[in-house]
Amino acid sequence: MCREAGIVLTKDESDNIEVVDEGLGNVEGTGLQIVTYINTERVCAKEIIMFPFQTCPEHAHPAVGDYVGKEETFRCRRGTVYLYLPGEKTEKPAAIPPRGTEMHYTVWREIALKPGEQYTVLPGTLHWFQAGAEGAIISEFSTKSLDETDIFTNPHICRTTEITD
Amino acid sequence: MCREAGIVLTKDESDNIEVVDEGLGNVEGTGLQIVTYINTERVCAKEIIMFPFQTCPEHAHPAVGDYVGKEETFRCRRGTVYLYLPGEKTEKPAAIPPRGTEMHYTVWREIALKPGEQYTVLPGTLHWFQAGAEGAIISEFSTKSLDETDIFTNPHICRTTEITD
Repeated sequence: MCREAGIVLTKDESDNIEVVDEGLGNVEGTGLQIVTYINTERVCAKEIIMFPFQTCPEHAHPAVGDYVGKEETFRCRRGTVYLYLPGEKTEKPAAIPPRGTEMHYTVWREIALKPGEQYTVLPGTLHWFQAGAEGAIISEFSTKSLDETDIFTNPHICRTTEITD
Repeated sequence: MCREAGIVLTKDESDNIEVVDEGLGNVEGTGLQIVTYINTERVCAKEIIMFPFQTCPEHAHPAVGDYVGKEETFRCRRGTVYLYLPGEKTEKPAAIPPRGTEMHYTVWREIALKPGEQYTVLPGTLHWFQAGAEGAIISEFSTKSLDETDIFTNPHICRTTEITD
């Protein structure tokens, strides 16, 4: 997918794409593939690669100590991504949460992002997103990523479970 | 160039590419084309598009008040970019500064970046870069951009001169 999108990865990056199943063991449903370009104390940049209808489950990035929390901008590069945020519920949302996890999705204001479109999520804001039928590639520009302190609505989720292939 | 590289811009973005001539009036020699995706108090992301042999002149991003200065990662997407930093002078550097401005280039440790390769420049570090013969596209991931406080080695440079086309 990266190759088709013109995104050049080093061998080391493509050999080490992070496959995140959020501990639910159903990565095609709930999960992401991530290439982290950089994650310093101040700046983080990633490509997020999503298969069709794959879902990043509802979560927020809280303040941790002196850190006011992660601010992140999602910029769609390929496909369509449906992003959900607090606010008035969208009448006919495009996304359907993975079966059996529906109760863990509580924010339903939909922002559809097509290639070239982007949206900034501020710290502490509940959000989730799902790729459309073609899958999606999303660039994420943010402050420092501290995945282990993310707060997920679904109590079964464990972000630190990782399979690297 | 963006289209060929698979980088999708909105109409507004492609209509408003920032053309920076650094006040020298010779944009093909000293200059850059920039699409700024986002520049908040905490995070900035840009694409930098460079014509063959075009040069971003030597400068540094200093601390300003409470801000410790801009940290920036350059990731080459297309072409080759030659980045120069303090340290031992590279014996046969690939880049030649634009004619008549040679005396304003003082750091000569060369880092050649090809597609997929990247380098992080810390605040306060003098640096400059030049595209190779094919031009280059570079993604920049950084903290907040404050162009007007950049310190250029060449005293004739005025970063706030901008032509937007």
